[in-house]
This record gives sequence, C-alpha cells and structure tokens, in this order.
Amino acid sequence: MPTMLQTRPWATLIAALPLSLGLAMPVAAAQLTAAESDPVALGWMKGAPPSPDKLIMQPDSNYFSFPKMRWTVCHIRELLPTKQVSRGLGVPVPMEYALDEAAIDAVRFTPTGTQRTMTWQEAFDANYTDGLLILHRGKIVYERYAGCLQPAAQHAAMSMTKSLTGLLAEILVAEGRLDDTAPVASVVPELKDSAFGSATVRQVMDMTTALDYSENYADPQSGIWQYSAAASPLPKAPGYTGPNGYFQYLQTVKQDGPHGRAFGYKTINTDALGWIIARVTGKSVSELLSERLWRQIGAEQDGYMTVDALGTPFAGGGLSAGLRDLGRIGQLVLNGGHLHGLRLFPSEVTRNLQAGGDKAAFAAGYRGLPGGSYRSMWWVFHNTHGAFAARGVHGQTIYLDPTAQMVIVRLASHPKAGNAANDPTSLPAYQAVAEYLMTRP
Amino acid sequence: MPTMLQTRPWATLIAALPLSLGLAMPVAAAQLTAAESDPVALGWMKGAPPSPDKLIMQPDSNYFSFPKMRWTVCHIRELLPTKQVSRGLGVPVPMEYALDEAAIDAVRFTPTGTQRTMTWQEAFDANYTDGLLILHRGKIVYERYAGCLQPAAQHAAMSMTKSLTGLLAEILVAEGRLDDTAPVASVVPELKDSAFGSATVRQVMDMTTALDYSENYADPQSGIWQYSAAASPLPKAPGYTGPNGYFQYLQTVKQDGPHGRAFGYKTINTDALGWIIARVTGKSVSELLSERLWRQIGAEQDGYMTVDALGTPFAGGGLSAGLRDLGRIGQLVLNGGHLHGLRLFPSEVTRNLQAGGDKAAFAAGYRGLPGGSYRSMWWVFHNTHGAFAARGVHGQTIYLDPTAQMVIVRLASHPKAGNAANDPTSLPAYQAVAEYLMTRP
Repeated sequence: MPTMLQTRPWATLIAALPLSLGLAMPVAAAQLTAAESDPVALGWMKGAPPSPDKLIMQPDSNYFSFPKMRWTVCHIRELLPTKQVSRGLGVPVPMEYALDEAAIDAVRFTPTGTQRTMTWQEAFDANYTDGLLILHRGKIVYERYAGCLQPAAQHAAMSMTKSLTGLLAEILVAEGRLDDTAPVASVVPELKDSAFGSATVRQVMDMTTALDYSENYADPQSGIWQYSAAASPLPKAPGYTGPNGYFQYLQTVKQDGPHGRAFGYKTINTDALGWIIARVTGKSVSELLSERLWRQIGAEQDGYMTVDALGTPFAGGGLSAGLRDLGRIGQLVLNGGHLHGLRLFPSEVTRNLQAGGDKAAFAAGYRGLPGGSYRSMWWVFHNTHGAFAARGVHGQTIYLDPTAQMVIVRLASHPKAGNAANDPTSLPAYQAVAEYLMTRP
Repeated sequence: MPTMLQTRPWATLIAALPLSLGLAMPVAAAQLTAAESDPVALGWMKGAPPSPDKLIMQPDSNYFSFPKMRWTVCHIRELLPTKQVSRGLGVPVPMEYALDEAAIDAVRFTPTGTQRTMTWQEAFDANYTDGLLILHRGKIVYERYAGCLQPAAQHAAMSMTKSLTGLLAEILVAEGRLDDTAPVASVVPELKDSAFGSATVRQVMDMTTALDYSENYADPQSGIWQYSAAASPLPKAPGYTGPNGYFQYLQTVKQDGPHGRAFGYKTINTDALGWIIARVTGKSVSELLSERLWRQIGAEQDGYMTVDALGTPFAGGGLSAGLRDLGRIGQLVLNGGHLHGLRLFPSEVTRNLQAGGDKAAFAAGYRGLPGGSYRSMWWVFHNTHGAFAARGVHGQTIYLDPTAQMVIVRLASHPKAGNAANDPTSLPAYQAVAEYLMTRP
C-alpha cells in the first residue's frame, strides 16, 4: 500500500479526502509531535534551490505524506493547477474582536475515552493545529496560527469543500432553482446510465446513494484509484484509456442496491453534486463560491480550487482558503444567511442543515459519530447544543454551535487522515469552550 | 516547427516569452480580428464539461496557439502550478479617476511606416487589447477591458515579469544590498563554471552577457528546448536526464565570447538574476514582489507566478497580475519610488532605469527599437519624452512617459508574439496620447 501511494502522488491527495471513516493513511514518523514536525522548523522548501532533502514538489511522489504534508496543506497551488475563487475587488469587511485567549487556553475537558483532563491549549498541539479561530456572538474571541499557516495564507479545506458545495445546493433548493426530489438523470442526462441517474438530488446531497465504489487501497482496480487517475490534472500516463476528469468518471459508476437506505461517505457524490450545480446555474462550483460567498462576505483573501484536466473544480475536496474567511462563512451559516447587514440566502437553508439527515441511514452506513446524521454534506451531531459541522480529513472543521452562538474553525495537519484520530481531543473541547463562553462572567 | 511546438505544450509557453526580437510564433488563423477571435464569444471552456472543441487544458498540446491563447493569457494558473504574490490583507488603496475616454479614443496618430492615420480606439482592437489603463498625473483617464480580461482577473504579464525582477534588483543595488559590479560567481557560487560566473551582476541585469544559447526552434538541441524541458513543473518524460529547473539549467550554459559587448535578449539572464536576488535576500522573487511591491502599493488583487518543479518562480516571464495593480506599479516607478504618501524605494532607482543602458551594445545586439537601450530589464526609448517601458510578447507593456506624467498599461493577446507586430500601431499612439494629455484644455 505505501508503495502504491508513493508512486501515485495525485492519487495520494485525492485518496486522502474521503477517509473520515477512520481509515488511516500510511503514517511515516507519526510519533513526531506538532513541534517536532513543524514545517517551518523543518525548513521544507527553504533555500534557492532547496536542498534535495528539503524539497516537496512535483515530481516528488510523496508530498502528502507526514510530515511533508504539514507543508503541503498550505501550498497546494504550487503543486497543481487551480482555479481562483475570487473575493472580487471590494474592501474586506473587518471582523470584530473580543479576545479572551488566556481563559480559553485554560479551559479543561476530558478527552473521549480517557480519565485525564486536558486543556484547550494542550489540545491545540495534540491535534497538529495550523490555525484556530473562535467566534462568539459574531466576535473573534480566539485566533491562533501555527505550522505552515499565517493570516495571509490559504490552507487546504479538504472535505470541508463538500460542505460548501452542499451549502450551494441547499441555497439553490431554497431559492427554487433546484428540485431536490428530482432524479439526477433529469438534471444531468449524461448520468442516466450511471448509479447516480436513478438517485434523487437529495440522495446525492445526503450521500444515501448506493454506489458500487470501493476505497480499498490494496486493490489497484478499486474505485478510488480509477477516480484518482481520472481526476489528475497532469498528463495521463502513456497508454491510459480510462475516464478523463470527474464527470467522465462519474458516468462509469454502477449502482449497488437500492438508494436511500444507508449513508455512504463517498466523495464522488459531491462531484456529482458539483455537476448538478454547474448544470443548473451554468457556473462551476468555484465561480458560484465566488459569486454567492466570497464576493459577499467581505472576504480578505481569494480562495482557490484544484481542477481536473478539463478544468472542473474538485467539488469534493479541492478548496484552499484563509482561516478568517472560513470564519465569515461559518458565521453566515450560523446566522441563518445574514452577515454584516446583508441577507445572502434564505434562513431555511440553515434550518435544513441543522435539522440533519436520516439518523437510521447514517447509523447503517457509518461507524463514527453515534447518534449523528449527514445533511447536504454537513455533519450533524444531534447533541444538546444542536451543533453541526463541516469536516475534512487531518482535522479540518467549521464547527457551529447555535446554542452557544459559537463558530470554531480549525485548520490542521494531523498525521492521521481520519478524524477518529482527533475527535477525542477536539469534540469534547468544543463543547467545553461552548459552555465556558455561555457562562463566563 | 509547428509540430514541435504542438507536441511540447510547456515549451510553447516558455518559448513564447523571449521573442521580442521579432521572431514570430506559428500563427494559426492569424487573419481573425480581435472581435472574431474574442475568447468569450468563442466559448472556450464553457459548459460542464466543455465540449471537446471548446477545451483548453492539460493535456491539450496547443493552449498557447492563437486563438486559444486569447483565453489562456487569463487562465495560466488553471494550466500550471503557481506561487501566490500576496497583496496581504490590507484595504486596497483606491485609485483616483479623471476619465477622459471619448477624447482619448478619438486621438489620431500615424502608424509607423504608413501614411494613413488611425484612432486610438481603432488601435485598441488592432492590437488585440485585453485591458488598457492610462494614468495622467496619477489619475485614471482611461480604463477598458476586452477579451478574457475583467477588472477582477489576472492576465499574463509575459516578459514584463523581467522588468519587475529587474526593478527588485535595482532596488537592492540602491539599498546597498547587491553589488552590481561583482562577478555573479561571488554571489551564486553554483554558477561559477557557467557563462554567468564571470559576468558581472550588471551585465546580467542589462543582458550584455555572452551566452552560448540559441533560440533556434528548428533545432531540437537548441537552448530554448533544453531550457523549456528543464523549466516544466510537470513530471519529466520517461528517460529524461537533463537539468531539472531553472537553476540547474543555468549551470549548463556556456560562454560565447566576451561579456559586455552586445545586448542579447535572452530570458535566461532574468532567471539568473532571480537566483541572485534569492541568494542575496533569502527570498524568492515571488515573495519579494509581494513584500516590496504588492503589499505596499495598496493592490486590489494578488498576483501569481508559475514555478518549475523545484518551486522556483519563473523570474523571466511567469507573472500574472491585474491591470490596475500593474498601473499602481507603473505609477510608483514613474514617481521615483513614491506612492500614496509612502516612499517604497530610493528615487535613484527610477533615475537609473530611465537613464538607460549602453546604446552601442544595444544596437549591436538588437534589430528593433533603433536608438534605444536596455537597463535592468527595462526598455528605454531615448525619445524626446524620455519614455521607458516594461514589455512582453503579444503586446504587453507598462509604458512610462515622465514628460507627460503618463503611465500606460496594456495587456493583450496579439496573434504574433514579437512586439514588432504591434509596435507600429502602439508606440506612435502612446506618443500621440501623451501629447494630447499635455496640451488638452
């Protein structure tokens, strides 16, 4: 398995995305702490030119392995072609500050499955955090950077990209431009003969499609490898005859059982949703993210998305963005579509996300997050605070707590891809900080 | 020749850059007018996915051919890995407007070598202009977009990148951080055994090095092809054993005669200068462009640069940037280092650029621009107005007229690479507009 990953660099990146099931990527030197694996201290890509042992680029075959990955998450565009998610030319809308960092750093919580408590500050490093932002009642109470990240830089959002794609779809549904009860084939006829054709748009949005698609990394014929090869924007290997690009690949996916019964966390649903969105609006996901979000939220920085060889942005995981801009989006969603005096989408969008999806279908198809559900590419915890979240491998999250009026954005580069590795030291911490914020003097 | 270009897409882009000598790239359908070749009207990359006849991407082998090139100049990042030239997070400094567009459109001039006059407006299309900005006494008097360009978008600067690299070097010289009389080998020891080693930094800056480097496209062994292959950020072809990256290639270049006698317009000088700058400052050209220019000028948009497979930005031609941001830089240079109340570099930098280089050496090595010279990667016309310019193939320019206190920025996609094709309908037009601005009521 490591050999295969090492020889297929693009596949490594794609393959890293759908792993919230808890599957771990091969982890070299996983014992390194956050400080020991700090990409600035390790000097990756420093020097003119960097010495060979400090080099992370094409054709380096291992750029998404730990600890190199801790550099790569801030430099995706230097490795791959990308599309801009333009903020436009407006003046950024400043965020308000009410910092309370020392008190938050001292908040204690008990990591899941342990007896010993831990502080928020300890969890920051334990989770290999690159950037952490907490908003309370719309004001920044905590903001900290580490690793490769700085305020003026973009970090890979990984599968949080799915949640933003899902948000776009939910907006289109609320605006009456997309019928989520329609079969996908009626929107994208090219998908008629694939598994997606007979699924409803809603089943794609909630990932309850039944897809004959495997993420068995040991099998070179498994879906994930074919998907990765199709998705690469780099010239295909000589003799390659497979599909080119997300859309061609999606047409090859076969159905496996009835749709609607079980949640199956498969990235290709989001790429299908990206196609649906592009067909309905005439705009790509990256253009629509710019038009509906980045140009509206007073963003400070452009975002960007990786593309396939046909220019299709990777709706399932290709976004990179700045920490505070993701905070603005989190606040917008928490606010039910309001931000700095503007209504950017109907409030029912947030209500729908927060209400969650089919809990039985979720339990039938997912081992983690017991009692939870998945709705329009957002994870819903169904906890006492009604929290829901965008999540991506290696520790990315936009965590929204409506009860505490709290937004947490974490960008990270945890050595293990699956969030099962960092949930025990992050989810209880989010709840503890929420309780602190609600009860502080 | 067309076959070779068509089968080496990266080479096509690199090769397009050093052609101000007047060598023409193969031009398919060059008879198409600006309107007929408009990339928006032609529908390049429209659709989800684009139909095959509208597709311009990797592994398309012809993306820099006309008329596809008229789309590509605004989308370089979608084809290749790039490094950000960050504007930082500040508030853009608005530019002042005093529009006078109708009068300027009506300005008449006589194209070089012809009898019949032409209006500025006619020249706009004749030169396949994508964006045109005129500043007079620091205020925008003319701003127009066409083709692939919009206000919120970046356009390939092509060899104008050289002028910005040269500007950085001239700043470092003025600040005493770089000795332009020193031999290059004393700054970058790795270049000791190459042609550059015995040249002075100044000879590199002014391109009076004597390099055994040919741009004979018909010879597969000529320097331009080896350079292109080395420079590509994409995985090398199987069996490739040549140099990897700009810096490795530069070490292979041999000397051909004595330095300092003749100007030779060869892009590799700028890549050597980029190495010198990186070694002296510890920062890449893209980082330094951000630090010294983009973060200081109140820029509205990030720029970006293409990179080789070691992450080295292409100092000789890799920049893409917004029209107004290039206008800010032009105004900064015209102002002798002042912009919106800040001094960003010593005034002697501008004086040195404007004074020009060795006119005899220029005449000995260049057929175009009679009476002109080349200084620190800027073209100096030595005309009555003391004009000097950044120039790039296919019609790019930042034209500075100190007498008229005028800055012109043109971004374009002329079917012919060499500026000999558009100089007759642009240089006299610049002079005519300068005279209009100086004498208008």
